Amino acid sequence: MSAVAAVADIGLIGLAVMGQNLILNMNDNGFTVCAYNRTVSKVDHFLANEAKGTNIVGAHSIEEFCKKLKRPRKVMMLVKAGQAVDDFIDQVLPFLEKGDIIIDGGNSHFPDTIRRTKELEAKGFLFVGCGVSGGEEGARYGPSMMPGGSKDAWPHVKPIFQAIAAKVDGEPCCDWVGETGAGHYVKMVHNGIEYGDMQMICEAYHILKEALGLTADELGDIFTEWNQGELDSYLIEITRDILKFKDTDGSPLVEHIKDTAGQKGTGKWTVVSALDNGMPVTLIGEAVFARCLSAIKDERVRASSILSGPNAKFTGDKKQFIHDVSKALYASKIISYAQGFMLMREAAKENGWHLNNAGIALMWRGGCIIRSVFLGDIKTAYTKNPELENLLFDPFFTKAVTEATQGWRNVVSQGALLGVPTPAMSSALAFFDGYRHAVLPANLLQAQRDYFGAHTYQRLDNESWVHTNWTGRGGNVASTTYLA
Amino acid sequence: MSAVAAVADIGLIGLAVMGQNLILNMNDNGFTVCAYNRTVSKVDHFLANEAKGTNIVGAHSIEEFCKKLKRPRKVMMLVKAGQAVDDFIDQVLPFLEKGDIIIDGGNSHFPDTIRRTKELEAKGFLFVGCGVSGGEEGARYGPSMMPGGSKDAWPHVKPIFQAIAAKVDGEPCCDWVGETGAGHYVKMVHNGIEYGDMQMICEAYHILKEALGLTADELGDIFTEWNQGELDSYLIEITRDILKFKDTDGSPLVEHIKDTAGQKGTGKWTVVSALDNGMPVTLIGEAVFARCLSAIKDERVRASSILSGPNAKFTGDKKQFIHDVSKALYASKIISYAQGFMLMREAAKENGWHLNNAGIALMWRGGCIIRSVFLGDIKTAYTKNPELENLLFDPFFTKAVTEATQGWRNVVSQGALLGVPTPAMSSALAFFDGYRHAVLPANLLQAQRDYFGAHTYQRLDNESWVHTNWTGRGGNVASTTYLA
Repeated sequence: MSAVAAVADIGLIGLAVMGQNLILNMNDNGFTVCAYNRTVSKVDHFLANEAKGTNIVGAHSIEEFCKKLKRPRKVMMLVKAGQAVDDFIDQVLPFLEKGDIIIDGGNSHFPDTIRRTKELEAKGFLFVGCGVSGGEEGARYGPSMMPGGSKDAWPHVKPIFQAIAAKVDGEPCCDWVGETGAGHYVKMVHNGIEYGDMQMICEAYHILKEALGLTADELGDIFTEWNQGELDSYLIEITRDILKFKDTDGSPLVEHIKDTAGQKGTGKWTVVSALDNGMPVTLIGEAVFARCLSAIKDERVRASSILSGPNAKFTGDKKQFIHDVSKALYASKIISYAQGFMLMREAAKENGWHLNNAGIALMWRGGCIIRSVFLGDIKTAYTKNPELENLLFDPFFTKAVTEATQGWRNVVSQGALLGVPTPAMSSALAFFDGYRHAVLPANLLQAQRDYFGAHTYQRLDNESWVHTNWTGRGGNVASTTYLA
Repeated sequence: MSAVAAVADIGLIGLAVMGQNLILNMNDNGFTVCAYNRTVSKVDHFLANEAKGTNIVGAHSIEEFCKKLKRPRKVMMLVKAGQAVDDFIDQVLPFLEKGDIIIDGGNSHFPDTIRRTKELEAKGFLFVGCGVSGGEEGARYGPSMMPGGSKDAWPHVKPIFQAIAAKVDGEPCCDWVGETGAGHYVKMVHNGIEYGDMQMICEAYHILKEALGLTADELGDIFTEWNQGELDSYLIEITRDILKFKDTDGSPLVEHIKDTAGQKGTGKWTVVSALDNGMPVTLIGEAVFARCLSAIKDERVRASSILSGPNAKFTGDKKQFIHDVSKALYASKIISYAQGFMLMREAAKENGWHLNNAGIALMWRGGCIIRSVFLGDIKTAYTKNPELENLLFDPFFTKAVTEATQGWRNVVSQGALLGVPTPAMSSALAFFDGYRHAVLPANLLQAQRDYFGAHTYQRLDNESWVHTNWTGRGGNVASTTYLA
């Protein structure tokens, strides 16, 4: 054991599909990688199969693994978020030296990453929480990577990460995100946005299918067309492929798939963080809840025989309606990203992170699940004006959303009238109309709270906080705690 | 000090408006109450003023306070949720004996109540986490009370709580809710529903005001009428009063109130719990986010000069539209309560609570902020069928929601077309249409997840979980963790 040579540029723990593919990607880019897995037989299997004929080396123990790494050692984990990450950190630490770098490439929850960064820095190590997106394809041929944590680690990690990351116009979709948990936070918001994008596409598919009675093939043609314009993106592209994909009997495979989707992961975390930060990230909220509703299918099946609706077909201009749906999708998407950047702005304030919005847009521009032409426009907006208060204030997006509103309003209206649910698109429109209202009806709400709970309200004329004795009964004591 | 006599039936800590009024209410009902407050001067002030001429006694130390209580001692706290509750528990414990009862009447978060119940029971004490609703008026003349925790405490607490609670048709709006944190959980959901009810009323007010150009007085007349029918409720009643209330200059006071509402309390907790339990409580979610959006007024003011909309007036039959808005409000309310009971059902499963839905409806029927005729109908539904799977499956509510749909759909549609945000009403309609769909578009979503992340999907025909190699590239390895 003592004769083990430090040959590897980086070590990777966790040989599920993402880990395997990242290793192969690093190898392709000229880096020597050492592979390790808790179930050690997986290492041998990997070396004898997927990694055959490469420079990849393996290890059968954590000690051997660490010894095979050049200094400063770079240990990257692709393991299940949660306890497993802490366990592996504990296992590798005895074999590391100060200045060595531990990288968590899993979907860890950002508060854990904040904690781990602080703990490991206190012990003299460097820690990087790195969001990785792109699925198995992305990991293999160029993922989007969002590293944050100990800034001193960046120069050592940068050559490897930027080499293996996706490239757009020659620029790598990987840059330093920010302090402590910023990388995993931005990845979490990415995933929340992904939930939203997927839900919106489902709504477009649903309303076109139900209101216009289109077949999967016809829908596939529509997505093919959409993928050539402003909606050009990975998710539209795979939707096109999915709609065209045939089962063994020649029928569209998508129609044989059960309509129940799971949640509980990063989408949920995004919504909870939005609630914690007081930011109205409504579209992702609706997308997560739409998955919850999909999951109670048995109850829905019973409901479908009890609760009736119009189930009507659309009777207007079909071609125009298809165009309107594309506009509803586009506008809702603008809202969702605007909400996501609003959330990151607040979280950065809260956690003292220095986020670079243009950099984030570039990291998402390629490699990841939400990659799109659209994110190039976002990058342009934030590059032009790094201090841009809201994405909707950028002239390009102001114009884009305004031009889309007519179709968007029509689709939401038709969905309501025809009985086809469009929770994400409707919620996005309600947000847009609320956001552009200088005056919302919360004045009435504040009056109610003061009426029943003596919570006081603020006057518009002199900004003073006052309590009104609305009933002429009761005391004049203003409440100090919310006891509704 | 040693000569202090145990004269009081119950002791109450915390003399803010809620605590004071509960004490006065108990006194009115023939109970002797001992009052204590951290700032002791408040005790003397209370005894010399609000409590003058009553049987209420006071204490200047925790020791004196506990000595003045008959056994088993009942110590009720009306203090700020959080650390203050634990602090007071620590302070009173040395002066209590086994079998004594501590009651937390504040808005504690239910996980804290679960923890406290277990901790105190382990020490031989009894603990009750009791939601109290009704604001200052309710506390004074009859609140809704939702006690849960140590069941053995109930016989001792019951006579006092049921005496001071609101009554509806002679029945007290207070009954035993369930184990550990069940009382505070149900109170939390109550508050979430309150957020929803208030938001829906604001939306009705907003769309009538903006689309029809009605004055506060005209709106007050509409709410007066609504309060005589199926919408008859405390919140509609106070909205009527608020709309009619004039400022010193004779103009409607509501129009001088700033439209920014706070959140972060129990509404948020309800949504987080919904996410944790995978239940689509969309309406409360939108209501909480609507408060968040109201809070960023300065940004909205800037947005209002950049983002334009139709800002159109309604051109159809005004009288019919007012009726439609009442139906949109009513139907959305049915959805919100259905969602709330869905959430409580899941939380009860998760926590092993035995909840009595009819009892909950009765507790909310009177005394509290959401009290309404409507809750009587819910009580009837659950009394008739305690095993009712969903409120929407009760014939009364199936009919009610179905009859309301035409107006509801029209309002949501008009809101979208006219540019007036109706986030809660729209979200409720999207939920309703999703819920009654046996098939939702999540089949496409599952296909997408399998495409980019090898997550597998379930086939409709044989229920098997399979992975498709959609691209013909990549591996056939199915992913075991969600690494999107």
